[in-house]
Amino acid sequence: MPTYQAPVDDALFLINDVFHIERYDNVPGFADASPDLLAAVLEEAGKFCSEVLAPLNRIGDKQGCKRHEDGSVTTPEGFKDAFKQLVEGGWIGISCPTEFGGQGLPTVVNQLVTEFLASANMAFTMYAGLTQGAIAAIYVHGSQEQKATYLPNLIAGHWTGTMNLTEPHCGTDLGLLRTKAAPQPDGSYKITGTKIFISAGEHDLAENIIHLVLARIEGAPAGTRGISLFVVPKFLVNTDGSIGPRNGVSCGSIEEKMGIHANSTCVMNFDAATGWLIGEENRGLNAMFVMMNEARLGVGVQGLAQSEVAYQNAASYAKERLQGRSISGVKFPDKPADPIIVHPDVRRSLMTIKAFNEGARALVMWTALQSDLAHRSDDEKTRQTADDHMGLITPVVKGVLTDQGFANAVAAQQIYGGHGYIAEHGMEQFVRDARIAMIYEGANGIQALDLVGRKLGKDGGRAVMAFFNEVQSYIKEHSGEENLKAYVGPLADAFGHLQQATMWFMQNARANPDNAGAGSTDYMHLFGLVALGYMWCRMADAAQAKLKAGADGAAPRLNAKLVTGRFFMERVLPETAAQLARIKSGAASMMELPAEAF
Amino acid sequence: MPTYQAPVDDALFLINDVFHIERYDNVPGFADASPDLLAAVLEEAGKFCSEVLAPLNRIGDKQGCKRHEDGSVTTPEGFKDAFKQLVEGGWIGISCPTEFGGQGLPTVVNQLVTEFLASANMAFTMYAGLTQGAIAAIYVHGSQEQKATYLPNLIAGHWTGTMNLTEPHCGTDLGLLRTKAAPQPDGSYKITGTKIFISAGEHDLAENIIHLVLARIEGAPAGTRGISLFVVPKFLVNTDGSIGPRNGVSCGSIEEKMGIHANSTCVMNFDAATGWLIGEENRGLNAMFVMMNEARLGVGVQGLAQSEVAYQNAASYAKERLQGRSISGVKFPDKPADPIIVHPDVRRSLMTIKAFNEGARALVMWTALQSDLAHRSDDEKTRQTADDHMGLITPVVKGVLTDQGFANAVAAQQIYGGHGYIAEHGMEQFVRDARIAMIYEGANGIQALDLVGRKLGKDGGRAVMAFFNEVQSYIKEHSGEENLKAYVGPLADAFGHLQQATMWFMQNARANPDNAGAGSTDYMHLFGLVALGYMWCRMADAAQAKLKAGADGAAPRLNAKLVTGRFFMERVLPETAAQLARIKSGAASMMELPAEAF
Repeated sequence: MPTYQAPVDDALFLINDVFHIERYDNVPGFADASPDLLAAVLEEAGKFCSEVLAPLNRIGDKQGCKRHEDGSVTTPEGFKDAFKQLVEGGWIGISCPTEFGGQGLPTVVNQLVTEFLASANMAFTMYAGLTQGAIAAIYVHGSQEQKATYLPNLIAGHWTGTMNLTEPHCGTDLGLLRTKAAPQPDGSYKITGTKIFISAGEHDLAENIIHLVLARIEGAPAGTRGISLFVVPKFLVNTDGSIGPRNGVSCGSIEEKMGIHANSTCVMNFDAATGWLIGEENRGLNAMFVMMNEARLGVGVQGLAQSEVAYQNAASYAKERLQGRSISGVKFPDKPADPIIVHPDVRRSLMTIKAFNEGARALVMWTALQSDLAHRSDDEKTRQTADDHMGLITPVVKGVLTDQGFANAVAAQQIYGGHGYIAEHGMEQFVRDARIAMIYEGANGIQALDLVGRKLGKDGGRAVMAFFNEVQSYIKEHSGEENLKAYVGPLADAFGHLQQATMWFMQNARANPDNAGAGSTDYMHLFGLVALGYMWCRMADAAQAKLKAGADGAAPRLNAKLVTGRFFMERVLPETAAQLARIKSGAASMMELPAEAF
Repeated sequence: MPTYQAPVDDALFLINDVFHIERYDNVPGFADASPDLLAAVLEEAGKFCSEVLAPLNRIGDKQGCKRHEDGSVTTPEGFKDAFKQLVEGGWIGISCPTEFGGQGLPTVVNQLVTEFLASANMAFTMYAGLTQGAIAAIYVHGSQEQKATYLPNLIAGHWTGTMNLTEPHCGTDLGLLRTKAAPQPDGSYKITGTKIFISAGEHDLAENIIHLVLARIEGAPAGTRGISLFVVPKFLVNTDGSIGPRNGVSCGSIEEKMGIHANSTCVMNFDAATGWLIGEENRGLNAMFVMMNEARLGVGVQGLAQSEVAYQNAASYAKERLQGRSISGVKFPDKPADPIIVHPDVRRSLMTIKAFNEGARALVMWTALQSDLAHRSDDEKTRQTADDHMGLITPVVKGVLTDQGFANAVAAQQIYGGHGYIAEHGMEQFVRDARIAMIYEGANGIQALDLVGRKLGKDGGRAVMAFFNEVQSYIKEHSGEENLKAYVGPLADAFGHLQQATMWFMQNARANPDNAGAGSTDYMHLFGLVALGYMWCRMADAAQAKLKAGADGAAPRLNAKLVTGRFFMERVLPETAAQLARIKSGAASMMELPAEAF
């Protein structure tokens, strides 16, 4: 049975020593987030994850969700009670607006808690995550009445939310969607159509389910400019806020899928269901993007989360499993064999995952902090810069953290040998669960295109220039420091590759856009490695400063940080050269063959 | 429902145009293998795979194997009949010795057929594959009597075989094994112990199951030097060859696992089961290695096989699925969207897999040809050179083809977007099935250690020097040819990296063996890329020669070969630089942390 311990110490190191969030106490919500409060919140979240959610993870996978003949869905044993505890702990609304009952703490905190929850039980956490997405969309685009109707119950967790985008014939290309919305005299709409892959579409965890649905109003233009967003509750809500009659939306079936079995992934049938427009007509994609940005960051966190829990279990196993002897000489002569952590190749995997996890956690926190500033700062320039950063880094976080998170889950499984392939140890579940994060909320190829095709050139490249300037200034400022040489030097090389790749796109993609598409995935990963490398420099910097100041009991942890950072620079970062070479090879050999040659 | 078409044309191109197997007609078995016969055999195998085995793949995954209270095991619906057809087609004994009823065709043919079978239905094919392994071990190490008793029925497929190595506390480190063998007055042994992860351990496909079992004879030395190999049939065989009484070996349970559900992976209990020694006392590991080399090659082929079938389905889907528009301009204005194969990032995945598959198929064939020469040539020098090659390349084939085969199955699944995560399309099964190949028959980390720690230095480096000489001579000979420049140039770069890495090990691993362990996996993959690059040069060469000679209808296929080879050189091979950089960074940061830091 796999176990999980939330990395609270690492989170606090990031909060207090790397990002110094106490410096932001002029931003709403931050002043309340004292170091002591955050430590207590994270400890509490970690405890809930270890004790309640992690033990349900295997059960959830085995039992899955069951749809009954009447269309109702039962979640696995223990989920209802755990969700009740989640709700009572106020975890869903932790960063939500206080005016609707949330706690208003920074998104930074919510993302850390989300990581913990998703490590312990990814399928379970999706019910809460989708609810947070629905809250964001209604909060930003809903009318006052809609906010009052839905937000308090969503934030409290009495109701949950969903996102209804995909249809059988369209996922990425939403311009093709067919679900119809017929205007009614009372201002509502009748929604008719079929949506697929709807996570948390139907379940028994909450009194009501608030579906956000993309549909085309009768007579709207074809393509993406004719799509509107609707709120379609499972039960209509009476004017006094109480639950009213059942709406015409139901779960037609549950998908049989590779993993996240405990999340009910539904085919949802809308049969003249009553819905209300959110935001403007035909601007539904825009409104949905608010949800999607939050959701994409959250999905990136899922990649990290699965990587972290897989790592923790693999590390324990590597310390316990006795097999073979160290090639540098027997380490435990009194035991029948050495624990496999003595073998360099096992270490290679563990260190690779560890170095990624700690870097990725920093990158998420950095991005979440920008999200807070973008939404909460009272300074317009700060908001804009932060928003630029969010837009630029979100596809990188989503694409890189889920690709690598999956690869890490596979590597962690490998440490178990044959035992990793057996369901009992839970390692194969991490792999199956992690796999979806590369696909949903925009498949990773789409994230790469978003980065290269949209974000790079947006506003004359303002966002990417700001990022480049920040990294470049950091390198300049610290390149003379002997104690950071092992970190800043490799970052400078990797950053050089990123600049060259960016330049290459500028020179070669206008004449042939396929050159940008051909290099997009490599570019996203190259960008991710540079961002992670930059995070590692800042962490090494912070660790050294803290050690110098006298770290007491934290010294072993800080020294480990420095070694892990060196490993990242030596073993992970060299990939950027290969990525650059691939990008520069362009689209020619990739695009030359006719379709029938495949 | 996924489909499969055996790549017969590609196989024939390799046989006839790249490796010219007609040149080996002085080797036993090759003279019978005329181009026409081989074409007919491969066509027939392909038909069986498409029509009989592929349709059973999803069923097998869904139903799995069922163990009943009496310990018997039922395979999924249709498996019994399909196995009967496999047996009647003579496919199990296709390359087995004619003296025991085999067809004696080259191993080259068997490996191609194995690829086809494993693409169509990997779990099914394991029953046959393990039988072939048992045949090899008994043929090489068994007594005349043992051969006569077991080989005819195994080769005919009336009986199947297994390999019993792993125990709960030991997999890689067989020196720890505890299963006991007590000598009996009649020369037999009573075998007692528990083996786990025994593929095809119990099932309903054959009359008898011949278990090959590693056990320790009472009083034998501890460690690997006290292990002997035994044959333990499920039913004892009477002296007249008929099936006798049930032996004391039974299936205790079936493992619940990530994939290959249709193969019964058993816990096998040996309860004073009667067994007979195969080969010499305490030399069991040696005897088992015969089986393992064949099996490792076969597992490498499984990696290729899953990559191929996943590719075929992803390519079909990419040509049919309409989503988005080409960034270089609308390609199908009459359709609501373009097929996704117009998108460079989709092409990138397809081309990467295609380039790997075709290169890997060549590498397998080259290696299988060496296996044939090693076993069949009447020239000692040829046998030795071929055996060297086999020993050197087998871990590379096993490790690289399964790591990359799995990665390719994941990439192919990704092309389906959300539909790839759903069981219905079968793509997620390819991923789950492919995953085991990285683990069993020696986890890939062990393959890498075998290569670096054993094979490189063996016989004063004779095997690796021969391989290097061959590649170097090829590069020298063809470096002036303008039409091969795009292939030979990149190979020369990659080969340079491999030479540097080898040199680095020579200079740095003696003082600190961890330096070898730390770089072993990267080295294995670097070696694999060079070997695949060399295969691609030879294929490009052969394609150009054939085009020059007038290829008629084959021209599009040969031109595609040239483009695919260029893609391999431009997009896949650049990785070698990063591998070299990682290897050269050594073991320091990897080994520095104390175990408690993980």
